[in-house]
Amino acid sequence: MHLDLTVDAAQLTEDLVNIESVSGNEQKIADAIETALRGLDHLEVQRFGQTVVARTRQGRAERVVIAGHIDTVPLNANLPARRDAENLHGLGTCDMKAGVAIALKLAATMPVTNRDITYLFYECEEVEAERNGLQLLAESNPDLLQADFAILMEPSDAVVEAGCQGTLRVDVRTTGVRAHSARSWTGVNAIHAAGEVLARLNAYEARRPVIDGLEYHEGLNAVYISGGVAGNVLPDECVVSVNHRFAPDRSVEEAYAHMREVFDGFEIELSDSAPAAMPGLSVPAAAAFLEAVGGTANPKFGWTDVARFSALGVPAVNFGPGDPHLAHKQDEFVPLAHIATVERQLRSWLGEGT
Amino acid sequence: MHLDLTVDAAQLTEDLVNIESVSGNEQKIADAIETALRGLDHLEVQRFGQTVVARTRQGRAERVVIAGHIDTVPLNANLPARRDAENLHGLGTCDMKAGVAIALKLAATMPVTNRDITYLFYECEEVEAERNGLQLLAESNPDLLQADFAILMEPSDAVVEAGCQGTLRVDVRTTGVRAHSARSWTGVNAIHAAGEVLARLNAYEARRPVIDGLEYHEGLNAVYISGGVAGNVLPDECVVSVNHRFAPDRSVEEAYAHMREVFDGFEIELSDSAPAAMPGLSVPAAAAFLEAVGGTANPKFGWTDVARFSALGVPAVNFGPGDPHLAHKQDEFVPLAHIATVERQLRSWLGEGT
Repeated sequence: MHLDLTVDAAQLTEDLVNIESVSGNEQKIADAIETALRGLDHLEVQRFGQTVVARTRQGRAERVVIAGHIDTVPLNANLPARRDAENLHGLGTCDMKAGVAIALKLAATMPVTNRDITYLFYECEEVEAERNGLQLLAESNPDLLQADFAILMEPSDAVVEAGCQGTLRVDVRTTGVRAHSARSWTGVNAIHAAGEVLARLNAYEARRPVIDGLEYHEGLNAVYISGGVAGNVLPDECVVSVNHRFAPDRSVEEAYAHMREVFDGFEIELSDSAPAAMPGLSVPAAAAFLEAVGGTANPKFGWTDVARFSALGVPAVNFGPGDPHLAHKQDEFVPLAHIATVERQLRSWLGEGT
Repeated sequence: MHLDLTVDAAQLTEDLVNIESVSGNEQKIADAIETALRGLDHLEVQRFGQTVVARTRQGRAERVVIAGHIDTVPLNANLPARRDAENLHGLGTCDMKAGVAIALKLAATMPVTNRDITYLFYECEEVEAERNGLQLLAESNPDLLQADFAILMEPSDAVVEAGCQGTLRVDVRTTGVRAHSARSWTGVNAIHAAGEVLARLNAYEARRPVIDGLEYHEGLNAVYISGGVAGNVLPDECVVSVNHRFAPDRSVEEAYAHMREVFDGFEIELSDSAPAAMPGLSVPAAAAFLEAVGGTANPKFGWTDVARFSALGVPAVNFGPGDPHLAHKQDEFVPLAHIATVERQLRSWLGEGT
């Protein structure tokens, strides 16, 4: 499999999309990327599993990471890629091979840049955290992720999306006493007890804090509820799983403490969490980047891998072609105009023509 | 397998218990019962599946049914029977081979009674209604169930339990609009909407109507709740299954209409129902029986096969040895004193010594 990194970025996107790479099956695309990059003298290339790292070593004052995952969600009768006048359609076009294509083209065609660059093409972003290539690299070679600033080329409508909200899940459990439903006064119904949990969720007012000029929007939602033993038995347990999305001004610990307040009097258990990432737009490298790409930033509500950079002390933003709402949709596509715009803006920021 | 029906009723109970007869596996015990009864000239014996019917034909003014099911719930390391000074322990001792033993002993040892008797020993009471021997007989040979009064020898602490409450189940469904939980304000959470359903259940005040001098006690309880799509998705559906137990002054239709009032504004669906049975203690044959066995009656809260007689226009009561709360328990037992009392009272009512 030979990849020509110098073709038009839309064409390169199509070539990448046509190398099927569902999470866990990235070897072929990682091999193609590694081979193509190893042919370039200005890059130091390393391979970790199905993750490829390529770095310039120009001795610049600043280093930036440009990163993208090379896996996709499962195939859904949406390959090969199909192009019309305005868009490229197919699995991974939006999430996120268009972003990967732009990064690869920059890597191949800009041997000289005004900042040193660490390009990261990583595996298993679409599956559990312990397989995530960026997470694995953060554990095994954290030095490779050190930089003044990081750009994740996730779809963001070709506009900077800064920071990300954190997420946690708690199980709120109510208990009761089983009894035959024909003599219900001899028991205590745990599902009825969950009524108060739902009442608190309905009464909850989500914060909308403004951070670095961006308005975040928290949320508190039941995502599962279950209880019941048999059709004629009062249930002795009911569990409401609640997902809390919290703005970057709170740590996981603070957000969990808030959950204990909200569900005061109930048994709660933290089942999952991931920290938020501050937008970090006040850091000089980030401010300069935002300025270069038009000055507009939106808050990122969903959780993304920018939080992994944030945890390492590296300010990071999402900036890539494609509508983020199309990610994981059967009919995902990427506008060709987005690809051109993002490539042009990055080239300019990295010093082309200066 | 030979059954001697003339032994002490406690011994006969033990003999019946030791013929394992989990629902669907009643052939052996039904064969033994049929063979023993066919040896008795004063009885007309018929067999339907694993159900045995034996009738006296003395031309009395009144006919009563004395009935018991011969199946048990599944084995649970509780056979063979074990007797101590006061109780007989083991699967089916309480529910309800002690009652069956008394009926068989009466059938064998009282060739002359002051009322004609139809003895019914039927299959599959512990499983779904369509396999219930009494139900099958009501469909195929309803004439065999015709009588002035019926006694079901289910455990009732050796005291008359009259009538039974009805039962129905409705699924109350809430709907919403799916959305990613990171942008929850774009969706509508169906689990949150179920908060109002639980609030109504918590606020519900159950009726306790007095009928024929017996105080019933209704109930309205969630028995299942479920909803949820994924850990990061606002669910678009939640279902609360609600079990309503209603007193015998209401029909299924009236009780269901009441549910539509209680859950007004929600989509509800009737998933299961069984009618209540009026206690019928004002009917002369029932009143005479109650008088003969001590004058005390309790309301029956749970649903039992008395409702099948009630549906045929035959007043019916539960009256048998054993604590009904021990039914289906691994450690069920029957007090030997209950067996003696119930046998003595029935003998007296049926005219022995007069």
